[in-house]
Amino acid sequence: MSLPSSPTFADVQEAAARLRGRVHRTPVLRSSTFDRLCGGEFWFKCENFQRAGAFKARGAFNAVFSLPDEAARAGIVTHSSGNHGAAVALAARERGVRADIVIPEGTVAIKRAAIERYGATIHVCEPTLAAREARASALLQERGGTLVHPFDDVRVIAGQGTAALELMEEVGRLDAVLAPVSGGGLLSGTALAAAGMGTGIAVFGAEPAAADDAARSFRAGHLIDQGNGFTIADGLRATLSERTFALIQRHVTGIATVSEAEIVSAMRLAWDVLKLVIEPSCAVPLAVLLSGREPRLQGRRVGIIISGGNVDLDRLSWLPAG
Amino acid sequence: MSLPSSPTFADVQEAAARLRGRVHRTPVLRSSTFDRLCGGEFWFKCENFQRAGAFKARGAFNAVFSLPDEAARAGIVTHSSGNHGAAVALAARERGVRADIVIPEGTVAIKRAAIERYGATIHVCEPTLAAREARASALLQERGGTLVHPFDDVRVIAGQGTAALELMEEVGRLDAVLAPVSGGGLLSGTALAAAGMGTGIAVFGAEPAAADDAARSFRAGHLIDQGNGFTIADGLRATLSERTFALIQRHVTGIATVSEAEIVSAMRLAWDVLKLVIEPSCAVPLAVLLSGREPRLQGRRVGIIISGGNVDLDRLSWLPAG
Repeated sequence: MSLPSSPTFADVQEAAARLRGRVHRTPVLRSSTFDRLCGGEFWFKCENFQRAGAFKARGAFNAVFSLPDEAARAGIVTHSSGNHGAAVALAARERGVRADIVIPEGTVAIKRAAIERYGATIHVCEPTLAAREARASALLQERGGTLVHPFDDVRVIAGQGTAALELMEEVGRLDAVLAPVSGGGLLSGTALAAAGMGTGIAVFGAEPAAADDAARSFRAGHLIDQGNGFTIADGLRATLSERTFALIQRHVTGIATVSEAEIVSAMRLAWDVLKLVIEPSCAVPLAVLLSGREPRLQGRRVGIIISGGNVDLDRLSWLPAG
Repeated sequence: MSLPSSPTFADVQEAAARLRGRVHRTPVLRSSTFDRLCGGEFWFKCENFQRAGAFKARGAFNAVFSLPDEAARAGIVTHSSGNHGAAVALAARERGVRADIVIPEGTVAIKRAAIERYGATIHVCEPTLAAREARASALLQERGGTLVHPFDDVRVIAGQGTAALELMEEVGRLDAVLAPVSGGGLLSGTALAAAGMGTGIAVFGAEPAAADDAARSFRAGHLIDQGNGFTIADGLRATLSERTFALIQRHVTGIATVSEAEIVSAMRLAWDVLKLVIEPSCAVPLAVLLSGREPRLQGRRVGIIISGGNVDLDRLSWLPAG
C-alpha cells in the first residue's frame, strides 16, 4: 500500500506566494479581557474577515490557481459543508471556470447563499461524508474536471497552512498555535507551517466532543474511521483522512475536546467580549481555552486561528428557536 | 454672554500622547464587499474593539488622566447612556478614584453591567437629558468631585478626536471621514482632528432621523434645542451643546439622516458582511453609506468611525422580541 503524498513546508511557502493579492492578509487582534479570562496571552488570526468569510479561501485559491489552464477549463468539483464550497466557487469564478459543489442537506443558509452568489452549481446530497464523496465522484465521471477535496488534498492543506504562517511571522515569539479540527486540512497545514518555522511552536487541535474522531485517533495512534455524531459546529463534522492524520500524528502536540454547551457559550462570549462575529466551529478553540481543558496552553503565548464567521443570524444558538 | 471654551488641534495631539498605553490603538479594517455595495473605498476604524467596547474610552481616559491628583481624589461624576459611563468607570478604576455614574432607565444591560464590573456606583434616573444633568449636579453638590460630561467637555472632545487622528495617519490619503452624531463629542473631535491635519479631508455626520437635532441645527445655522424622539440607536439620543455645535458648524461639511429601518438593516449587514459586532448607534454611518443619502461620499475614499459594539445579544433588533 502506498502512502498518500504529503505537502511540505515549501508547499506552504509557495502557497503564500500564490495567494498574495488573491486572498486577504487578515488582521491579528488581541483582547486584554480574553487574556485575563483564560490566563495567558492570545493572538487571534481573524480568518472570519477572509474572503468568503473563512480560512477555506486559502486552500481553495491555492488549489484552483495551481491547476494548469487546460485542467482548470474542465471545471472544478468539490463537496463541502459550506465554507469550502463557497471558497471554491469564488476561486473558480475568479479563474473564469465552472464549479460544481456538492453540499449536504441542512447546510447553513448563509453558506449556501454564498455558493450561489459566486455562480457555482449546487448539488444537494444526504448529510454524510460517504454521500458527499459518492456524489462528487459521479459528477467527475459525468462531466470530467478536477476534484478539489475539502481537506484531503496537498494544495488545500498547504494553502490552509498560510494562515498560521502569517500569524507566526506577525507576532514573533509564540509558544503554541491552536486551531479547530474536522477533516484536518487546517490543523495539518498549521502544524506543517509551525514545524517549518523551526522555532519550537507547539500545535494543538480543538474538536467538539460530539465529533471527536481526531482526538480518539490521536490517542489511539491509528485512524479510527467511524462516523461522528451531531455537533452544532457545522464545519467540524468531517473525519480525518490518512494524509491529514499522518501530518497531525507527526507534528501536533495534543487535541482537546469540548461539549456542545461549551461551544455555544464560547461563541456568545466571543461576540460579547471580542466583538467578532464567529461561527460555531470557530468557537471550539475558544471553548478549549475558556474551559482550561488543555493545561499546556495556560499562561502561554498562544495564536488562535479564528476560522470563520458564516453564521445564520436568524438562528443564534443561545436564543430560543424562532 | 461668553462663548464656551473650545479645544484645539493641539489638544487632540496632547490627548493622543496621554492615551498611549492607556487605550488601544484599534485596527483599521476594509471590506471589498462593502466597497462594492456602497460604491467607494472604505476604511473602518474599529472602536468596537476599544477598551470597554467603544470610542468613549478615549475621551474618558483623557479627561480622567488630565485631572490634577487632588481633583481626581475627590472622585468623578458623570451621566451617560452607557458607553461613556463604562469608560469613565474604567478610567477612574485605573486612576484609583471613585466614580458615580448617572444612567437613564432602560440603559442597555451590557452597558450597565460594564459600569458595575468596573466598580463604579450607579444612579438611575428618568430617560431625559435634563433628568441626567439634574441628578449629576445634585451628586456633585452632595459629594464634590469633577464632572466629566459625556460630550460638552474640552478634554472629552479632544480625546474622541484621537480615533480619527489615528485613522488618518494610518490610511494616508482620505477624502472624508464619517462619524455618528449625538451630543457631538465624537463628531466635533473628529472634525477638529481632520481640520488640524490640513489635508482637506471633509467630515460628515450621521444621525438617526428620529433624533435629528444636529441635522436640523446644522441646516438652520443655529442650535435647535428641542428633545429628540425615540431611536433604536441608544447611544444617539442626546442633543448638541453650544460648544460641540460651534465646532461642527465650523468644520463639518454635512449631516445625513437615516430611518430606524435603515439602521436595523445596516446593523445586520455589518454583522453578516463585515463580521463585526456593532451596536445600533454604530450602524448609523453605515446606513448613510448603504442608502446613498450623501452623494458627496459616493466613489470617494472614506474613513468611518465604527463607534462601538455594546449590544444586548438577547435582544437583536432584527429578531422578534423574545
